Amino acid sequence: MAKDGKKLVEAITSMDVDFAQWYTDVVKKAELIDYSSVKGCMIIRPAGYALWENIQHELDRRFKETGVENVYLPMFIPESLLEKEKDHVEGFAPEVAWVTHGGLNELQERLCVRPTSETLFCDFYKNLIQSYRDLPKVYNQWCSVVRWEKETRPFLRSREFLWQEGHTAHATAEEAEERTVQMLNLYADFCEEVLAMPVIRGQKTEKEKFAGAEATYTIEALMHDGKALQSGTSHNFGDGFARAFGIQYTDQENRLQYVHQTSWGMTTRLIGAIIMVHGDDSGLVLPPRIAPVQAMVIPVQQRKEGVLDAAREVCGRLGTVCRAKLDDTDKSPGWKFSEQEMRGIPVRIELGPKDIEAGTCVVVRRDTREKLTVALDRLETKIPELLETIQHDLFERAKAHRDAHIWDAHNYEELKDIAEHRPGFIRGMWCGDQACEDQIKEELAVTSRCMPFHDKEQIADTCVCCGRPAHKLIYWGRAY
Amino acid sequence: MAKDGKKLVEAITSMDVDFAQWYTDVVKKAELIDYSSVKGCMIIRPAGYALWENIQHELDRRFKETGVENVYLPMFIPESLLEKEKDHVEGFAPEVAWVTHGGLNELQERLCVRPTSETLFCDFYKNLIQSYRDLPKVYNQWCSVVRWEKETRPFLRSREFLWQEGHTAHATAEEAEERTVQMLNLYADFCEEVLAMPVIRGQKTEKEKFAGAEATYTIEALMHDGKALQSGTSHNFGDGFARAFGIQYTDQENRLQYVHQTSWGMTTRLIGAIIMVHGDDSGLVLPPRIAPVQAMVIPVQQRKEGVLDAAREVCGRLGTVCRAKLDDTDKSPGWKFSEQEMRGIPVRIELGPKDIEAGTCVVVRRDTREKLTVALDRLETKIPELLETIQHDLFERAKAHRDAHIWDAHNYEELKDIAEHRPGFIRGMWCGDQACEDQIKEELAVTSRCMPFHDKEQIADTCVCCGRPAHKLIYWGRAY
Repeated sequence: MAKDGKKLVEAITSMDVDFAQWYTDVVKKAELIDYSSVKGCMIIRPAGYALWENIQHELDRRFKETGVENVYLPMFIPESLLEKEKDHVEGFAPEVAWVTHGGLNELQERLCVRPTSETLFCDFYKNLIQSYRDLPKVYNQWCSVVRWEKETRPFLRSREFLWQEGHTAHATAEEAEERTVQMLNLYADFCEEVLAMPVIRGQKTEKEKFAGAEATYTIEALMHDGKALQSGTSHNFGDGFARAFGIQYTDQENRLQYVHQTSWGMTTRLIGAIIMVHGDDSGLVLPPRIAPVQAMVIPVQQRKEGVLDAAREVCGRLGTVCRAKLDDTDKSPGWKFSEQEMRGIPVRIELGPKDIEAGTCVVVRRDTREKLTVALDRLETKIPELLETIQHDLFERAKAHRDAHIWDAHNYEELKDIAEHRPGFIRGMWCGDQACEDQIKEELAVTSRCMPFHDKEQIADTCVCCGRPAHKLIYWGRAY
Repeated sequence: MAKDGKKLVEAITSMDVDFAQWYTDVVKKAELIDYSSVKGCMIIRPAGYALWENIQHELDRRFKETGVENVYLPMFIPESLLEKEKDHVEGFAPEVAWVTHGGLNELQERLCVRPTSETLFCDFYKNLIQSYRDLPKVYNQWCSVVRWEKETRPFLRSREFLWQEGHTAHATAEEAEERTVQMLNLYADFCEEVLAMPVIRGQKTEKEKFAGAEATYTIEALMHDGKALQSGTSHNFGDGFARAFGIQYTDQENRLQYVHQTSWGMTTRLIGAIIMVHGDDSGLVLPPRIAPVQAMVIPVQQRKEGVLDAAREVCGRLGTVCRAKLDDTDKSPGWKFSEQEMRGIPVRIELGPKDIEAGTCVVVRRDTREKLTVALDRLETKIPELLETIQHDLFERAKAHRDAHIWDAHNYEELKDIAEHRPGFIRGMWCGDQACEDQIKEELAVTSRCMPFHDKEQIADTCVCCGRPAHKLIYWGRAY
């Protein structure tokens, strides 16, 4: 870290001192968000929005490969429509924003600003679907939704956030289940391959499932502070919504059947996950595949003849193999280094008169701070390789951290001890009784994150809470 | 038109019989929209949304080439913030939707759902901009906005619509003016090059300008029925908003200055324009550059051995040079032809056993219905050429239609006669007095569309309304 960049970095709290404050400092200093005059709503600034654009672009591409089509439904839901599915309205009504006036007139019926669009899609599908030929419908929309939360935090929990919500209708229960799992796996692969963030795939308990769903599948990631973040969910509704809304089709034998539905969503909360999984005391650390700028070229002594020209030439060449940018502002190199670090740009390329003379440059990895001297004519092969290495290393480091923070609890005493002293996921058996889940949440502030798909180990015979026989392994944790 | 596809096409009204009904039929039958339970709000279906995605993609690319960065601001505006600029609130307050309750509680201050975001951007810029180094800010957002219109029509006027809104802040009035013109020209070029829709670029009168703007520039297109459609606007705010919101910066001489601002927007209304400029009695006609599917491969006698395989092979090869799709559903070829025509897909490729034997296929242009026999091994060069030809021809046809519907009025009698009998743009001189504009609007239902940039002809010396001396040429017209 060059000296004059110190000021920028000193402005952020160390993550070990106060993780929550560190997070708030990073989202501000890396210029991801700004606060707005609307309490609980954030402004997503260019550096933050560019991350969302990359997430959108890559998710959308993967969606479309599986046959998803995009649509757009209204942002308002009439109160009577929201109320059609009992569990669903109970889950959402307490936290929606209500529109009561249009122009100068009071509305005849209140409209809520969508907190999610199951009810609108059902109302749409009811008219659209008549025959088995109309199935499946595999629609998605990119939009913002509103949930009137009391406590808010940028990206993690805000009154308005951006997301995608997929809503599908199928002829059979099997096909709906297949789609539910398919999308959860798509989400998991995206997190691991693109965001370099390992996730645990599993099923939510009855208590934690989505309002109106038969089953909710989830991916759970571990943040640097040992708290869990639910990073994407996929719900199988069975025919519950179809019955409430009357969505029926005639099958090939001309019988009337209810459709089976799913929904699945990912949000701007993923940006919070990127920050909290990879960031450090110098700011953001972006995985190369999601970074809007992958390589920042920073000239040293840029007023010396030939330096800026050489930097431009290097940036131009790099631009053909990665997302490269030149910082030719009149700030000092040290300040530029600190900014590049704060913004999490995966590599920087330092280029001064001596480097140019030697036909080399200094390449610095953001994640490890490692410095490499690279021949200028080797950059176009070296930088893409290095970006792949960084991507790989970030995933491995996050996975090692996650795996080092999974603890087994065989009884309540152990569970209490771990919950109080060891941040991370806790593996513990559960009898299946919600009373135990409630007790653990109330007494230890730990919730059931999921029943994992790929970890079926029977680590004990009895419930970690009540001691009765238990066959279900649960990952427990404190969560955002 | 094959006989069994007749039913689909007979379902739409002829455009010469009832243009409004034809429009409504096309948006429904081409599956662009569906109506929702929320009065005045539409559902944009996959075929409609794919058009919007293509518009977004191409506009966004062009924006970014000029240095635009994307952001996202909240969808809510506190009432006190909306009221800060006097003209602006007067323009919008009568048509906004008000949120009064969050969850179970009444809000302390009402929030309106954004009808446009000038006030939010000003509030944001006020904190963000301190020094000349912070300028310019050239931000844009893609979002939906709400205006509580009484009369609604799909795409053209709905209570919620999708758009982009650019908001910029500059150090000088000159730079703001330059950006205002630059974006208007970008819009015009986009319409002409991509949507094949000729536009007239010009300035709005004081009466018709945006609430709070110093000057509003517009592009006006002529629909098939002779009515005008305002297709994009760009506003120069001068320092009016900056003074109302206190957005100041210190210049290089350390003096405090107000910024100069602009905003500019395009909306899903463009989809309405595409329909009404190019459509015909068989449905949509899409310009190839915006068409989600450019070539539909339709097998004839597809159950005969080898036909489907050959069609797949053709579609696969075409997929490397254009957006091609195969219709291998079990509908009849005639029905598929009608559907492809209704959806406006620029070309279809008919391929049956005899064609395969001859090593050819039949290519049919959507716009002219012209049929061409093309050798199968020539398709990859022929189809892209043909798409370019169609794109070019659509523009020329629309331009010829537009130019044939521009009429000159030298006095009120002529103006009245044209307004009543000849659909199209009316060129007429104007004294500059709003009373004349009001009178023309009230008596003839014709509004001033713009004072054109590139047409400065002095077609008379006197105002078309009052007969006083006049120097301003106005394009008048009935408008959507």
